[in-house]
Amino acid sequence: MECYFDHVATTPLRPEVLEAMMPYFKEEFGNPLSIYPLGVNAREAVEKARAEVAALVNAKPQEIIFTSSGAEANNFALKGIAMARQYEGKHVIVTRMEHHSILNTARFLEKLGFAVTYVAPDSHGYIEPASIKKAITDETILISVIHASPEVGTIEPIREIAEVARERKISFHTDAVATVGNIPVDVKEMGVDLLSMSAHMFYGPKGAGALYIREGQRIIPLIFGGIQESGRRAGTENVPAIAGMGRAAELARAELPERMEHVRRLRDRLIEGIMKIEAVHFTGHPERRLPGHASFCVEYIEGEGMLLMLASKGIYAASGSACTSKALKASPVLLSMGIPTHVAHGSIVFTLGAENTEEQVGYTLEEFPRIINRLRELSPFARGWEDVKEGGTCTPKK
Amino acid sequence: MECYFDHVATTPLRPEVLEAMMPYFKEEFGNPLSIYPLGVNAREAVEKARAEVAALVNAKPQEIIFTSSGAEANNFALKGIAMARQYEGKHVIVTRMEHHSILNTARFLEKLGFAVTYVAPDSHGYIEPASIKKAITDETILISVIHASPEVGTIEPIREIAEVARERKISFHTDAVATVGNIPVDVKEMGVDLLSMSAHMFYGPKGAGALYIREGQRIIPLIFGGIQESGRRAGTENVPAIAGMGRAAELARAELPERMEHVRRLRDRLIEGIMKIEAVHFTGHPERRLPGHASFCVEYIEGEGMLLMLASKGIYAASGSACTSKALKASPVLLSMGIPTHVAHGSIVFTLGAENTEEQVGYTLEEFPRIINRLRELSPFARGWEDVKEGGTCTPKK
Repeated sequence: MECYFDHVATTPLRPEVLEAMMPYFKEEFGNPLSIYPLGVNAREAVEKARAEVAALVNAKPQEIIFTSSGAEANNFALKGIAMARQYEGKHVIVTRMEHHSILNTARFLEKLGFAVTYVAPDSHGYIEPASIKKAITDETILISVIHASPEVGTIEPIREIAEVARERKISFHTDAVATVGNIPVDVKEMGVDLLSMSAHMFYGPKGAGALYIREGQRIIPLIFGGIQESGRRAGTENVPAIAGMGRAAELARAELPERMEHVRRLRDRLIEGIMKIEAVHFTGHPERRLPGHASFCVEYIEGEGMLLMLASKGIYAASGSACTSKALKASPVLLSMGIPTHVAHGSIVFTLGAENTEEQVGYTLEEFPRIINRLRELSPFARGWEDVKEGGTCTPKK
Repeated sequence: MECYFDHVATTPLRPEVLEAMMPYFKEEFGNPLSIYPLGVNAREAVEKARAEVAALVNAKPQEIIFTSSGAEANNFALKGIAMARQYEGKHVIVTRMEHHSILNTARFLEKLGFAVTYVAPDSHGYIEPASIKKAITDETILISVIHASPEVGTIEPIREIAEVARERKISFHTDAVATVGNIPVDVKEMGVDLLSMSAHMFYGPKGAGALYIREGQRIIPLIFGGIQESGRRAGTENVPAIAGMGRAAELARAELPERMEHVRRLRDRLIEGIMKIEAVHFTGHPERRLPGHASFCVEYIEGEGMLLMLASKGIYAASGSACTSKALKASPVLLSMGIPTHVAHGSIVFTLGAENTEEQVGYTLEEFPRIINRLRELSPFARGWEDVKEGGTCTPKK
């Protein structure tokens, strides 16, 4: 049996989405800036998609700027606001729950002379609005807080933090790559100034992301050039991918409650089953979490071993974030939550999607405990594990 | 009859290319960073494409970094080198022949405190290597010269300019978006340090570009985040588009001489026919030009009128650059070549491609003179035109 449980890495493309893209790979190949019909049709496809994406997050179409990815949207937001507002102050606040595209951009801003505060979460990966408030100085121009962590699934109190930011006239960005299309996202209700999203996180194509920029927010482009995207993001539009993102947004808006209910049911069963295994820790917030997200740390074994053994059984999961799976380092997000390094190394993340089934969850609940047992038998920490079983300490032996 | 003569705006996607992309829209939808088979297959597709793109320009695969567009590659090159080398000097040289993605990035660098010299071309749009040499100061860290202009087709003496740059240990970038896949491009033979390209300029998909970065060149990323592209360009890879770019590169390498010969023959016939019309000026270099590129300024009428009338006959061309067609300003490139504003307004550019035919050229040579006559009859400069016909001056009447 094959079970794809890595929907925070990428989602399969919906056939309806591919269908919406196909004309732009074939007869409608024009450049949206051209004034003849081929160009006009391409332009119309882009604007139709813009309206759909805007509708999904309750924005105005002119507030949506297409990018090539969520990472580009995050870079654009942070650097664009920092550059635009640097004369008002040079302090930026982010959190330790952020994706690498935020954290590494923040480090770049430090090199440009900005001061950056990295706010820590609690042990559930939750960011207290009060801890953001405490970090604010008179120099603060920008705060960026992830909407939900792809690693531990915790949903942050964006509305409350946005209020804190608004009181101080600080631009507020949220990285909503893991949430848009998966849970309700409403930029007005949340009160954010900027919001990043990515089509391939909600059954749309790779190569299409977007940044919501509230009307009136001044921003410096990341990609300079022609007059595309109202002069805010240059480069010939990736028309097929944008058309696909629009269609995926339309589907998400229509199907959201049903999708959430489906993955929540599967997730709860998966969590219940996996938590029966000895020395497995649930990570992230127990209630405030993505409906399809189940994440754990399995003591005494490494994430990589689990991933490979699971894959050999046709079960595809992640360890840490998608971008660190290959890096094989203990996830900084887990460490920031206070999880010890040796436990963080046993990170395993199952993220469920619309196409997953009860049978797949049942199969995984049969296979996963066996895999853990097998790996623990082989583990260099095996002796430590024996100690635990006999009532010893959780600290692995040297 | 329909005639697509705007191959510098975008090219139609080759069916073979779409075919190479399709698996990654369907069963092979994995994230290239994932370690299970779906991810590994996606990773292999990206690396296969990298090898093909590298082979097309005679680079090593590890010297190719995929981007979302030529504009992104240009921004990455200029900002990335400027940031990496700013402590050695803060002077950058570009030319007035550059694309907006270079010119507007150069202006941004000026705001960051860099000095930028904009070198002017001669009346053929040709950049004399001596004029680059003259612009170099002890502070110069970067020179960027376009390989060939999409507006006037002139091919610049990149090898000679690269030599000038190398002597002074200045990083040298060329925007080869209009040339890669259309004429031979060899990074070793040209001696460039960085080179931008775009898949949709050679029958590949939109959403895929690349920057060649010579081994050993240090560059600061434009998009920070995960470990994709050796940590130099973050964001989940647009796997289908990258696979398509690879296939398009493979096809270009195999078919280049044949493609060039085909468009050159059509272009020469088009130029010969159009130059028979009164008060039409050929723009760009008569010999050193893109084989499929025919560009003119038609006196006494506006480019927009011609484009619309041509489109009504099924003939799709451009005026100025693709990115200015909608801006409808006189092209800065034409002005920099010394063409008077009122003449530059009559810019018309036909760019031919592999699928164009002799019949299409014949049809255009019938229709275009009629369109010019009709527009000249309606033109606000009509009186001026009468003067010319009677031997008067070229300067239009107020």
